[in-house]
Amino acid sequence: MPHVIVEYSENVEPEAGIPALLRLIADRCANTDNVLPVAGIRVRAVRLTEYVIADGKPEYGLVNVTVKMGAGRPQEFKKTFFGSLFEAIKSHLSNAFKARPVALSMYVEEIDEQGAYRHNGVRDAMGLPPKQSAT
Amino acid sequence: MPHVIVEYSENVEPEAGIPALLRLIADRCANTDNVLPVAGIRVRAVRLTEYVIADGKPEYGLVNVTVKMGAGRPQEFKKTFFGSLFEAIKSHLSNAFKARPVALSMYVEEIDEQGAYRHNGVRDAMGLPPKQSAT
Amino acid sequence: MPHVIVEYSENVEPEAGIPALLRLIADRCANTDNVLPVAGIRVRAVRLTEYVIADGKPEYGLVNVTVKMGAGRPQEFKKTFFGSLFEAIKSHLSNAFKARPVALSMYVEEIDEQGAYRHNGVRDAMGLPPKQSAT
Repeated sequence: MPHVIVEYSENVEPEAGIPALLRLIADRCANTDNVLPVAGIRVRAVRLTEYVIADGKPEYGLVNVTVKMGAGRPQEFKKTFFGSLFEAIKSHLSNAFKARPVALSMYVEEIDEQGAYRHNGVRDAMGLPPKQSAT
Repeated sequence: MPHVIVEYSENVEPEAGIPALLRLIADRCANTDNVLPVAGIRVRAVRLTEYVIADGKPEYGLVNVTVKMGAGRPQEFKKTFFGSLFEAIKSHLSNAFKARPVALSMYVEEIDEQGAYRHNGVRDAMGLPPKQSAT
Repeated sequence: MPHVIVEYSENVEPEAGIPALLRLIADRCANTDNVLPVAGIRVRAVRLTEYVIADGKPEYGLVNVTVKMGAGRPQEFKKTFFGSLFEAIKSHLSNAFKARPVALSMYVEEIDEQGAYRHNGVRDAMGLPPKQSAT
Protein backbone atom coordinates (compact mmCIF):
# COMPACT_ATOMS: atom_id res chain seq x y z
CA MET A 1 0.00 0.00 0.00
CA PRO A 2 -0.84 2.50 -1.11
CA HIS A 3 -2.40 1.47 -4.39
CA VAL A 4 -3.10 4.48 -6.60
CA ILE A 5 -5.14 4.32 -9.82
CA VAL A 6 -5.15 7.35 -12.14
CA GLU A 7 -7.96 7.21 -14.69
CA TYR A 8 -7.76 9.80 -17.44
CA SER A 9 -9.74 10.55 -20.58
CA GLU A 10 -7.53 10.30 -23.66
CA ASN A 11 -8.23 13.91 -24.64
CA VAL A 12 -6.18 15.23 -21.69
CA GLU A 13 -3.10 13.22 -22.66
CA PRO A 14 -1.21 15.88 -24.68
CA GLU A 15 -1.07 18.33 -21.77
CA ALA A 16 -1.45 16.11 -18.69
CA GLY A 17 1.99 14.49 -18.65
CA ILE A 18 0.69 11.22 -17.25
CA PRO A 19 4.03 9.39 -16.79
CA ALA A 20 5.38 12.38 -14.82
CA LEU A 21 2.13 12.55 -12.84
CA LEU A 22 2.52 8.90 -11.79
CA ARG A 23 6.12 9.58 -10.70
CA LEU A 24 5.03 12.68 -8.79
CA ILE A 25 2.44 10.65 -6.86
CA ALA A 26 4.89 7.80 -6.15
CA ASP A 27 7.58 10.26 -5.01
CA ARG A 28 5.20 12.02 -2.63
CA CYS A 29 4.14 8.70 -1.12
CA ALA A 30 7.80 7.71 -0.77
CA ASN A 31 8.52 10.84 1.28
CA THR A 32 6.34 10.16 4.30
CA ASP A 33 8.91 8.82 6.79
CA ASN A 34 7.62 5.35 6.03
CA VAL A 35 4.04 6.13 7.07
CA LEU A 36 3.39 4.84 3.54
CA PRO A 37 6.08 2.14 3.06
CA VAL A 38 8.06 2.59 -0.17
CA ALA A 39 7.96 -1.10 -1.09
CA GLY A 40 4.17 -1.01 -1.09
CA ILE A 41 3.72 1.88 -3.53
CA ARG A 42 1.87 0.86 -6.71
CA VAL A 43 0.75 3.71 -8.93
CA ARG A 44 -0.82 2.99 -12.31
CA ALA A 45 -2.86 4.71 -14.98
CA VAL A 46 -5.94 3.61 -16.91
CA ARG A 47 -6.56 5.44 -20.19
CA LEU A 48 -10.22 5.99 -21.05
CA THR A 49 -11.29 6.13 -24.70
CA GLU A 50 -15.08 5.98 -24.19
CA TYR A 51 -16.66 8.45 -21.78
CA VAL A 52 -19.47 10.97 -21.29
CA ILE A 53 -18.82 13.85 -18.89
CA ALA A 54 -21.49 16.20 -17.48
CA ASP A 55 -23.81 17.27 -20.35
CA GLY A 56 -21.64 15.35 -22.79
CA LYS A 57 -19.56 17.95 -24.61
CA PRO A 58 -16.66 16.05 -26.20
CA GLU A 59 -14.09 18.67 -25.19
CA TYR A 60 -14.59 17.91 -21.49
CA GLY A 61 -11.88 15.78 -19.91
CA LEU A 62 -11.47 13.91 -16.64
CA VAL A 63 -8.73 12.79 -14.30
CA ASN A 64 -9.80 10.65 -11.36
CA VAL A 65 -7.33 9.42 -8.75
CA THR A 66 -8.29 6.56 -6.42
CA VAL A 67 -6.02 5.88 -3.46
CA LYS A 68 -6.41 2.65 -1.49
CA MET A 69 -4.43 2.23 1.69
CA GLY A 70 -4.60 0.23 4.87
CA ALA A 71 -6.68 1.76 7.63
CA GLY A 72 -5.02 3.18 10.74
CA ARG A 73 -2.94 6.15 9.60
CA PRO A 74 -3.40 9.21 11.88
CA GLN A 75 -6.21 11.58 10.85
CA GLU A 76 -3.78 14.51 10.93
CA PHE A 77 -1.38 12.76 8.53
CA LYS A 78 -4.18 11.94 6.13
CA LYS A 79 -5.53 15.49 6.07
CA THR A 80 -2.14 17.12 5.58
CA PHE A 81 -0.60 14.59 3.20
CA PHE A 82 -3.54 14.10 0.87
CA GLY A 83 -4.46 17.79 0.85
CA SER A 84 -0.91 18.57 -0.21
CA LEU A 85 -0.84 15.70 -2.74
CA PHE A 86 -4.05 16.97 -4.33
CA GLU A 87 -2.62 20.48 -4.67
CA ALA A 88 0.50 19.03 -6.31
CA ILE A 89 -1.63 17.04 -8.78
CA LYS A 90 -3.73 20.13 -9.56
CA SER A 91 -0.57 22.14 -10.16
CA HIS A 92 0.90 19.41 -12.39
CA LEU A 93 -2.28 19.52 -14.48
CA SER A 94 -2.32 23.32 -14.95
CA ASN A 95 -1.67 23.04 -18.69
CA ALA A 96 -4.41 20.46 -19.05
CA PHE A 97 -6.83 22.83 -17.26
CA LYS A 98 -5.84 25.63 -19.68
CA ALA A 99 -6.42 23.43 -22.73
CA ARG A 100 -9.96 22.28 -21.86
CA PRO A 101 -12.44 21.91 -18.98
CA VAL A 102 -11.15 19.04 -16.85
CA ALA A 103 -13.04 17.41 -13.99
CA LEU A 104 -10.35 16.41 -11.49
CA SER A 105 -11.19 14.29 -8.47
CA MET A 106 -9.37 12.19 -5.89
CA TYR A 107 -10.83 9.67 -3.46
CA VAL A 108 -8.93 8.14 -0.56
CA GLU A 109 -10.29 4.78 0.55
CA GLU A 110 -9.16 2.73 3.51
CA ILE A 111 -8.88 -1.03 3.07
CA ASP A 112 -9.79 -3.61 5.67
CA GLU A 113 -6.64 -5.64 6.30
CA GLN A 114 -8.76 -8.71 7.04
CA GLY A 115 -9.11 -9.93 3.47
CA ALA A 116 -5.68 -8.69 2.33
CA TYR A 117 -3.04 -11.12 1.06
CA ARG A 118 0.43 -10.17 -0.09
CA HIS A 119 3.67 -11.58 -1.39
CA ASN A 120 5.91 -8.69 -2.28
CA GLY A 121 9.00 -9.63 -4.25
CA VAL A 122 9.86 -5.94 -4.48
CA ARG A 123 10.54 -5.84 -0.73
CA ASP A 124 13.20 -8.54 -1.17
CA ALA A 125 14.70 -6.76 -4.19
CA MET A 126 15.01 -3.61 -2.06
CA GLY A 127 16.78 -5.58 0.69
CA LEU A 128 13.91 -5.19 3.16
CA PRO A 129 12.82 -7.97 5.52
CA PRO A 130 9.59 -9.88 4.73
CA LYS A 131 6.47 -8.37 6.23
CA GLN A 132 3.15 -9.90 7.20
CA SER A 133 1.28 -6.74 8.10
CA ALA A 134 0.12 -3.82 5.98
CA THR A 135 2.37 -2.73 3.14
CA MET B 1 -20.51 12.49 -8.68
CA PRO B 2 -21.79 10.18 -9.78
CA HIS B 3 -18.91 8.25 -11.25
CA VAL B 4 -20.12 5.38 -13.42
CA ILE B 5 -17.83 2.66 -14.82
CA VAL B 6 -19.20 0.29 -17.46
CA GLU B 7 -17.04 -2.79 -17.91
CA TYR B 8 -17.90 -4.96 -20.89
CA SER B 9 -16.44 -8.06 -22.49
CA GLU B 10 -15.38 -7.34 -26.06
CA ASN B 11 -17.68 -10.05 -27.45
CA VAL B 12 -20.79 -8.01 -26.57
CA GLU B 13 -19.57 -4.95 -28.49
CA PRO B 14 -21.35 -5.56 -31.84
CA GLU B 15 -24.82 -5.57 -30.28
CA ALA B 16 -24.36 -3.63 -27.03
CA GLY B 17 -24.07 -0.11 -28.45
CA ILE B 18 -21.66 1.02 -25.76
CA PRO B 19 -21.36 4.72 -26.73
CA ALA B 20 -25.16 5.02 -26.71
CA LEU B 21 -25.31 3.14 -23.40
CA LEU B 22 -22.92 5.64 -21.81
CA ARG B 23 -25.06 8.53 -23.09
CA LEU B 24 -28.23 6.84 -21.81
CA ILE B 25 -26.72 6.55 -18.32
CA ALA B 26 -25.43 10.14 -18.33
CA ASP B 27 -28.81 11.46 -19.58
CA ARG B 28 -30.70 9.61 -16.86
CA CYS B 29 -28.37 11.00 -14.18
CA ALA B 30 -28.80 14.50 -15.65
CA ASN B 31 -32.59 14.25 -15.24
CA THR B 32 -32.84 14.01 -11.49
CA ASP B 33 -33.70 17.62 -10.57
CA ASN B 34 -30.09 18.06 -9.53
CA VAL B 35 -30.18 15.24 -6.95
CA LEU B 36 -27.22 14.07 -9.04
CA PRO B 37 -25.56 17.34 -10.18
CA VAL B 38 -24.95 17.45 -13.94
CA ALA B 39 -21.43 18.87 -13.63
CA GLY B 40 -20.39 15.87 -11.57
CA ILE B 41 -21.47 13.16 -14.04
CA ARG B 42 -18.54 11.04 -15.26
CA VAL B 43 -19.50 7.91 -17.18
CA ARG B 44 -16.81 5.77 -18.80
CA ALA B 45 -16.33 2.32 -20.27
CA VAL B 46 -13.59 -0.26 -19.80
CA ARG B 47 -13.33 -2.87 -22.56
CA LEU B 48 -12.29 -6.32 -21.38
CA THR B 49 -10.35 -8.60 -23.72
CA GLU B 50 -9.34 -11.31 -21.20
CA TYR B 51 -12.08 -12.89 -19.09
CA VAL B 52 -13.56 -16.14 -17.83
CA ILE B 53 -17.29 -16.18 -17.07
CA ALA B 54 -19.11 -18.91 -15.11
CA ASP B 55 -17.93 -22.34 -16.42
CA GLY B 56 -15.82 -20.58 -19.02
CA LYS B 57 -17.70 -20.91 -22.30
CA PRO B 58 -16.21 -18.30 -24.64
CA GLU B 59 -19.62 -17.21 -25.95
CA TYR B 60 -20.63 -15.84 -22.54
CA GLY B 61 -20.42 -12.07 -22.20
CA LEU B 62 -20.59 -9.61 -19.33
CA VAL B 63 -21.60 -6.03 -18.68
CA ASN B 64 -20.93 -4.72 -15.18
CA VAL B 65 -21.91 -1.20 -14.13
CA THR B 66 -20.39 0.34 -11.00
CA VAL B 67 -21.93 3.57 -9.70
CA LYS B 68 -20.10 5.61 -7.08
CA MET B 69 -21.87 8.56 -5.52
CA GLY B 70 -21.70 10.59 -2.38
CA ALA B 71 -23.69 9.22 0.54
CA GLY B 72 -26.84 10.98 1.71
CA ARG B 73 -29.37 10.71 -1.11
CA PRO B 74 -32.84 9.68 0.12
CA GLN B 75 -33.48 5.93 0.20
CA GLU B 76 -36.65 6.40 -1.86
CA PHE B 77 -34.75 8.25 -4.60
CA LYS B 78 -32.10 5.57 -4.75
CA LYS B 79 -34.59 2.72 -4.99
CA THR B 80 -36.70 4.39 -7.70
CA PHE B 81 -33.92 5.96 -9.73
CA PHE B 82 -31.52 3.03 -9.84
CA GLY B 83 -34.29 0.47 -10.34
CA SER B 84 -35.46 2.45 -13.34
CA LEU B 85 -31.90 2.99 -14.61
CA PHE B 86 -31.23 -0.74 -14.46
CA GLU B 87 -34.39 -1.49 -16.45
CA ALA B 88 -33.32 1.05 -19.07
CA ILE B 89 -29.86 -0.54 -19.31
CA LYS B 90 -31.42 -4.00 -19.62
CA SER B 91 -33.71 -2.77 -22.36
CA HIS B 92 -30.82 -1.09 -24.20
CA LEU B 93 -28.97 -4.42 -24.17
CA SER B 94 -31.86 -6.51 -25.53
CA ASN B 95 -30.02 -7.25 -28.78
CA ALA B 96 -26.90 -8.23 -26.85
CA PHE B 97 -29.01 -10.64 -24.76
CA LYS B 98 -30.43 -12.15 -27.96
CA ALA B 99 -26.98 -12.65 -29.48
CA ARG B 100 -25.41 -14.55 -26.54
CA PRO B 101 -25.78 -15.23 -22.80
CA VAL B 102 -24.80 -11.99 -21.04
CA ALA B 103 -24.27 -11.60 -17.30
CA LEU B 104 -25.46 -8.06 -16.53
CA SER B 105 -24.91 -6.54 -13.11
CA MET B 106 -24.98 -3.09 -11.49
CA TYR B 107 -23.63 -2.09 -8.09
CA VAL B 108 -24.33 1.25 -6.43
CA GLU B 109 -21.69 2.27 -3.90
CA GLU B 110 -21.77 5.28 -1.61
CA ILE B 111 -18.55 7.20 -1.12
CA ASP B 112 -17.41 8.76 2.13
CA GLU B 113 -16.96 12.48 1.45
CA GLN B 114 -14.15 12.64 4.02
CA GLY B 115 -11.34 11.62 1.71
CA ALA B 116 -12.81 13.26 -1.40
CA TYR B 117 -10.97 16.07 -3.20
CA ARG B 118 -12.25 17.88 -6.27
CA HIS B 119 -11.37 20.64 -8.70
CA ASN B 120 -13.99 20.61 -11.41
CA GLY B 121 -13.18 22.78 -14.41
CA VAL B 122 -16.36 21.52 -16.06
CA ARG B 123 -18.44 23.40 -13.48
CA ASP B 124 -16.79 26.66 -14.56
CA ALA B 125 -17.24 25.82 -18.25
CA MET B 126 -20.95 25.29 -17.59
CA GLY B 127 -21.17 28.68 -15.86
CA LEU B 128 -21.83 27.17 -12.44
CA PRO B 129 -20.36 28.60 -9.22
CA PRO B 130 -17.47 26.74 -7.55
CA LYS B 131 -18.52 24.11 -5.06
CA GLN B 132 -16.79 22.65 -2.03
CA SER B 133 -19.29 19.95 -1.17
CA ALA B 134 -20.31 16.81 -3.00
CA THR B 135 -20.53 16.97 -6.80
CA MET C 1 -20.60 -13.03 -7.71
CA PRO C 2 -17.79 -13.31 -7.24
CA HIS C 3 -16.34 -10.62 -9.47
CA VAL C 4 -12.56 -10.94 -9.75
CA ILE C 5 -10.32 -8.32 -11.38
CA VAL C 6 -6.68 -9.18 -12.08
CA GLU C 7 -4.56 -6.12 -12.79
CA TYR C 8 -1.08 -6.84 -14.12
CA SER C 9 1.81 -4.74 -15.35
CA GLU C 10 2.63 -5.60 -18.94
CA ASN C 11 6.22 -6.57 -18.04
CA VAL C 12 5.03 -9.71 -16.21
CA GLU C 13 3.08 -10.97 -19.22
CA PRO C 14 5.72 -13.31 -20.74
CA GLU C 15 6.00 -15.45 -17.59
CA ALA C 16 2.69 -14.84 -15.79
CA GLY C 17 0.39 -16.89 -18.01
CA ILE C 18 -2.56 -14.56 -17.51
CA PRO C 19 -5.22 -16.54 -19.45
CA ALA C 20 -4.36 -19.66 -17.43
CA LEU C 21 -4.36 -17.61 -14.22
CA LEU C 22 -7.91 -16.40 -14.94
CA ARG C 23 -9.03 -19.99 -15.57
CA LEU C 24 -7.33 -21.14 -12.35
CA ILE C 25 -9.22 -18.53 -10.34
CA ALA C 26 -12.55 -19.31 -12.02
CA ASP C 27 -12.05 -23.06 -11.51
CA ARG C 28 -11.28 -22.60 -7.82
CA CYS C 29 -14.39 -20.48 -7.35
CA ALA C 30 -16.44 -23.11 -9.20
CA ASN C 31 -15.32 -25.80 -6.75
CA THR C 32 -16.87 -24.48 -3.57
CA ASP C 33 -20.03 -26.62 -3.34
CA ASN C 34 -21.96 -23.61 -4.60
CA VAL C 35 -20.86 -21.32 -1.75
CA LEU C 36 -19.76 -19.20 -4.72
CA PRO C 37 -22.39 -19.95 -7.42
CA VAL C 38 -20.84 -20.93 -10.76
CA ALA C 39 -23.20 -18.77 -12.83
CA GLY C 40 -22.01 -15.68 -10.96
CA ILE C 41 -18.29 -16.10 -11.58
CA ARG C 42 -16.81 -13.22 -13.60
CA VAL C 43 -13.02 -13.11 -13.75
CA ARG C 44 -11.27 -10.55 -15.93
CA ALA C 45 -7.85 -9.01 -16.43
CA VAL C 46 -6.76 -5.40 -16.86
CA ARG C 47 -3.35 -4.92 -18.49
CA LEU C 48 -1.37 -1.94 -17.20
CA THR C 49 1.06 -0.16 -19.51
CA GLU C 50 1.77 2.91 -17.34
CA TYR C 51 2.86 2.34 -13.74
CA VAL C 52 5.39 3.27 -11.06
CA ILE C 53 6.15 0.65 -8.40
CA ALA C 54 8.00 1.32 -5.11
CA ASP C 55 11.10 3.45 -5.87
CA GLY C 56 10.28 3.28 -9.57
CA LYS C 57 12.70 0.76 -11.05
CA PRO C 58 11.23 -0.26 -14.42
CA GLU C 59 11.97 -3.95 -13.87
CA TYR C 60 9.49 -4.16 -10.99
CA GLY C 61 6.15 -5.75 -11.84
CA LEU C 62 2.78 -6.03 -10.15
CA VAL C 63 -0.18 -8.37 -10.03
CA ASN C 64 -3.15 -7.21 -7.99
CA VAL C 65 -6.27 -9.33 -7.57
CA THR C 66 -9.49 -7.74 -6.33
CA VAL C 67 -12.33 -10.07 -5.33
CA LYS C 68 -15.82 -8.66 -4.80
CA MET C 69 -18.47 -10.94 -3.39
CA GLY C 70 -21.74 -10.66 -1.54
CA ALA C 71 -21.42 -10.45 2.24
CA GLY C 72 -22.50 -13.35 4.42
CA ARG C 73 -20.17 -16.25 3.63
CA PRO C 74 -18.91 -17.98 6.80
CA GLN C 75 -15.65 -16.59 8.22
CA GLU C 76 -14.11 -20.06 8.20
CA PHE C 77 -14.89 -20.53 4.49
CA LYS C 78 -13.38 -17.17 3.63
CA LYS C 79 -10.18 -17.80 5.56
CA THR C 80 -9.63 -21.28 4.14
CA PHE C 81 -10.76 -20.66 0.57
CA PHE C 82 -9.00 -17.35 -0.05
CA GLY C 83 -5.84 -18.43 1.77
CA SER C 84 -5.67 -21.47 -0.49
CA LEU C 85 -6.55 -19.41 -3.60
CA PHE C 86 -3.75 -16.98 -2.84
CA GLU C 87 -1.22 -19.82 -2.48
CA ALA C 88 -2.38 -21.23 -5.84
CA ILE C 89 -1.97 -17.81 -7.50
CA LYS C 90 1.49 -17.41 -5.96
CA SER C 91 2.47 -20.85 -7.20
CA HIS C 92 1.13 -20.10 -10.70
CA LEU C 93 3.30 -16.99 -10.79
CA SER C 94 6.53 -18.72 -9.71
CA ASN C 95 8.19 -18.12 -13.10
CA ALA C 96 7.15 -14.47 -13.01
CA PHE C 97 8.74 -14.13 -9.55
CA LYS C 98 11.96 -15.69 -10.91
CA ALA C 99 12.07 -13.30 -13.85
CA ARG C 100 11.75 -10.05 -11.89
CA PRO C 101 10.62 -8.59 -8.54
CA VAL C 102 6.82 -8.79 -8.54
CA ALA C 103 4.53 -7.18 -5.99
CA LEU C 104 1.59 -9.58 -5.68
CA SER C 105 -1.49 -8.64 -3.67
CA MET C 106 -5.07 -9.80 -3.29
CA TYR C 107 -7.94 -7.99 -1.59
CA VAL C 108 -11.29 -9.58 -0.78
CA GLU C 109 -14.13 -7.08 -0.50
CA GLU C 110 -17.70 -7.78 0.54
CA ILE C 111 -20.47 -6.01 -1.35
CA ASP C 112 -23.65 -4.68 0.17
CA GLU C 113 -26.51 -6.45 -1.61
CA GLN C 114 -28.72 -3.40 -1.10
CA GLY C 115 -27.50 -1.56 -4.23
CA ALA C 116 -26.99 -4.66 -6.34
CA TYR C 117 -28.99 -5.27 -9.53
CA ARG C 118 -28.63 -8.32 -11.75
CA HIS C 119 -29.99 -9.92 -14.89
CA ASN C 120 -27.89 -12.97 -15.58
CA GLY C 121 -28.46 -14.52 -19.00
CA VAL C 122 -25.69 -17.00 -18.23
CA ARG C 123 -27.88 -18.63 -15.55
CA ASP C 124 -30.52 -19.34 -18.18
CA ALA C 125 -27.92 -20.65 -20.64
CA MET C 126 -26.71 -23.06 -17.94
CA GLY C 127 -30.28 -24.27 -17.35
CA LEU C 128 -30.49 -22.75 -13.87
CA PRO C 129 -33.64 -21.09 -12.50
CA PRO C 130 -33.75 -17.26 -12.30
CA LYS C 131 -32.49 -15.87 -9.03
CA GLN C 132 -33.23 -12.63 -7.21
CA SER C 133 -30.69 -12.94 -4.43
CA ALA C 134 -26.90 -12.88 -4.47
CA THR C 135 -25.12 -14.56 -7.37
